[in-house]
Amino acid sequence: MATINDNFLKLQAGYLFPEISRRIRSFGDKNPDAKIISLGIGDATQPLATAVVEAMKKAVVDMGSGSAFHGYGPEQGYDFLINAIIKNDFNSRGIDLDRSEIFISDGAKCDTGNIQEIFGLNNIIAVTDPVYPVYVDTNVMAGRTGQAGKNGQYGKIVYMPCTAENNFIPDIPKQKVDIIYLCFPNNPTGAVATKEILSKWVNFARNNKAIILFDAAYEAFITDPAIPHSIYEVEGAKEVAIEFRSFSKTAGFTGVRCAFTVVPKQLKAYTKDGKIVEVNFLWNRRQCTKFNGASYISQAGAAAVYTTEGKKQCRQIIDIYMANAAVICKSLINIGYETYGGVNAPYVWMKTPDGLSSWDFFDRLLQKANVVGTPGSGFGPSGEGYFRLTAFAKPDDVKEAMQRFASI
Amino acid sequence: MATINDNFLKLQAGYLFPEISRRIRSFGDKNPDAKIISLGIGDATQPLATAVVEAMKKAVVDMGSGSAFHGYGPEQGYDFLINAIIKNDFNSRGIDLDRSEIFISDGAKCDTGNIQEIFGLNNIIAVTDPVYPVYVDTNVMAGRTGQAGKNGQYGKIVYMPCTAENNFIPDIPKQKVDIIYLCFPNNPTGAVATKEILSKWVNFARNNKAIILFDAAYEAFITDPAIPHSIYEVEGAKEVAIEFRSFSKTAGFTGVRCAFTVVPKQLKAYTKDGKIVEVNFLWNRRQCTKFNGASYISQAGAAAVYTTEGKKQCRQIIDIYMANAAVICKSLINIGYETYGGVNAPYVWMKTPDGLSSWDFFDRLLQKANVVGTPGSGFGPSGEGYFRLTAFAKPDDVKEAMQRFASI
Repeated sequence: MATINDNFLKLQAGYLFPEISRRIRSFGDKNPDAKIISLGIGDATQPLATAVVEAMKKAVVDMGSGSAFHGYGPEQGYDFLINAIIKNDFNSRGIDLDRSEIFISDGAKCDTGNIQEIFGLNNIIAVTDPVYPVYVDTNVMAGRTGQAGKNGQYGKIVYMPCTAENNFIPDIPKQKVDIIYLCFPNNPTGAVATKEILSKWVNFARNNKAIILFDAAYEAFITDPAIPHSIYEVEGAKEVAIEFRSFSKTAGFTGVRCAFTVVPKQLKAYTKDGKIVEVNFLWNRRQCTKFNGASYISQAGAAAVYTTEGKKQCRQIIDIYMANAAVICKSLINIGYETYGGVNAPYVWMKTPDGLSSWDFFDRLLQKANVVGTPGSGFGPSGEGYFRLTAFAKPDDVKEAMQRFASI
Repeated sequence: MATINDNFLKLQAGYLFPEISRRIRSFGDKNPDAKIISLGIGDATQPLATAVVEAMKKAVVDMGSGSAFHGYGPEQGYDFLINAIIKNDFNSRGIDLDRSEIFISDGAKCDTGNIQEIFGLNNIIAVTDPVYPVYVDTNVMAGRTGQAGKNGQYGKIVYMPCTAENNFIPDIPKQKVDIIYLCFPNNPTGAVATKEILSKWVNFARNNKAIILFDAAYEAFITDPAIPHSIYEVEGAKEVAIEFRSFSKTAGFTGVRCAFTVVPKQLKAYTKDGKIVEVNFLWNRRQCTKFNGASYISQAGAAAVYTTEGKKQCRQIIDIYMANAAVICKSLINIGYETYGGVNAPYVWMKTPDGLSSWDFFDRLLQKANVVGTPGSGFGPSGEGYFRLTAFAKPDDVKEAMQRFASI
């Protein structure tokens, strides 16, 4: 008799975005003329950079040619892309990496979701609250958690509250934790971590033989030159951290699919018997067994992000989004809302007015302004009373949304 | 202290293809002038069909345009592709499927590797011997097996020998098994299963509440009209089978990355307490949590495979490979080798001459003919004494390789 992985049944039924879609549909059915503007989902809206388009066109033509056809590529990705990444994203910030430490993939969601497979089921997982749900749900599925409590939090996971009181920077946990998910610039709060803050985490991990899973998918949105883009800017981080990067937000690749993960050779973990094992070896084995490389076309496009033209054009796109973020922040502050993030991140995290719950504010905003955002409580109980707005919309829509915001 | 998933340490160190590469490199270093021909790896060599190239060019241009840009797509894939699949691959063979039963992905290796996640760790897994290593290794990593024995086979897995004696069709197991991996047309043996054979398996699964994971990645190579392309051509199969398909071999997408998996709504499995659960729901949850959809460009290319031009052009490419297979079979038979497969499959499975072991024959062929194939023992102990040749090479290379074969 084939049995299922019972851990799947622990997952909470109502996932955030389907519930949002349901409410929008229900409102739209009753108000067919309403022009709804979404500042809800973190999806690119600007077209790809011309340099990327040209590179992918060439790659497609290559695939139709006898001599330039590409079949299976290396599971770890092509050297032409890996070399460009090391040079531009890391060497430029004083970080040395070997080619074997970079793994190209089809998305940071896959990588942050799959990474837990290489670790034991007994590790205690720490996540921030609010949190990107993938970190939690993938550990639930694997069986590293207990059941969900009434507040939606799962047993055995250590949740680290992030609220205005601690500037949305989690406190170092007092209990034993083994694997810590950190995301800076943060989704959903837009908070960033200084070098000092990251150093504290790296030291904690070194002292406790813990591993940090560092999601840097939004690093391209950092405007403050003092804020690190990579955790490896902190000394010793290579011994304790895996870093996730993505072309999704950096270059609008949400529909193209390309990302990468850095697993330094110095990073070690332990067998049950305390024997030391290289984590890089494990992830390589995982990828070689369950993945067949990212599309050659996507990788060719990603490499173009690092050309002179590509850098300039991608920068212009990010500037559009960051101008949106600035408009959102300024408008909300003018109206009198408490806002956070939006300066080094494409997310604006606002306090709901009048003590409204996140979902009540969602409904009010949808009904009165026909604007969609994301209820903070959907990211965890500490997100209750907060609301996320994203800068990934068309500039005119953002301006219009802000005018309507002012009128509710 | 972060601990690793100790199951990874059960994996056998010497994976087949790296060992082959090592021996080729070593030979090439000593014989730099040798022109080595590979009939070793199942990777496409013919360029993509023009219809596919044109569709992907258009998709790339779309991605650079304000109005036709595509961000995140549905995790399950675009309807334009799902509808084309249902109509052409299934309705045409009398099989009805709902859109929600098809899941587009970036590769059948990923899907056949990831599918086990949704099932419990106590299921007894059955695989053929020889076998595509991904089925086994992913179950080892998940912890469904014991340690590897001397012959490379893992404890708790039920291996079903496939040799010339049973025409490379596994016997129905006598012991209890819960999840059965079947691959027809088979990699590596090139064997195919008639409707009668598949019916036996479906009946066995129905009677035992077992699930069949049916890998049909090579269905496009079937030439005999009596051989089923899909397991759903067999009555009742929707209640017990998941089917994997791929554009990799059908349309040369090994570097493009697109595949799909069919999980019928009728397929059920059980919780520990014996409660019935829809498997489709579990796979959907897995994909939504850990995957962000296949590249829009790859999906646009895959949809072009189903256009009138695309069908014709892809057929021509497959005909090239199948002509290669025919040349290989005919040549080997002329030389006096016992050969199997190669008629409804791109793989030719031959008995090694003179009682040589698979690896000894590999070395002899490399050294005397400078031709590379794959030792059958690399796919399992029942592959010992066999050797795999693939039809995925350029026709001139195949002819040249066969001449050299005749001279060793």
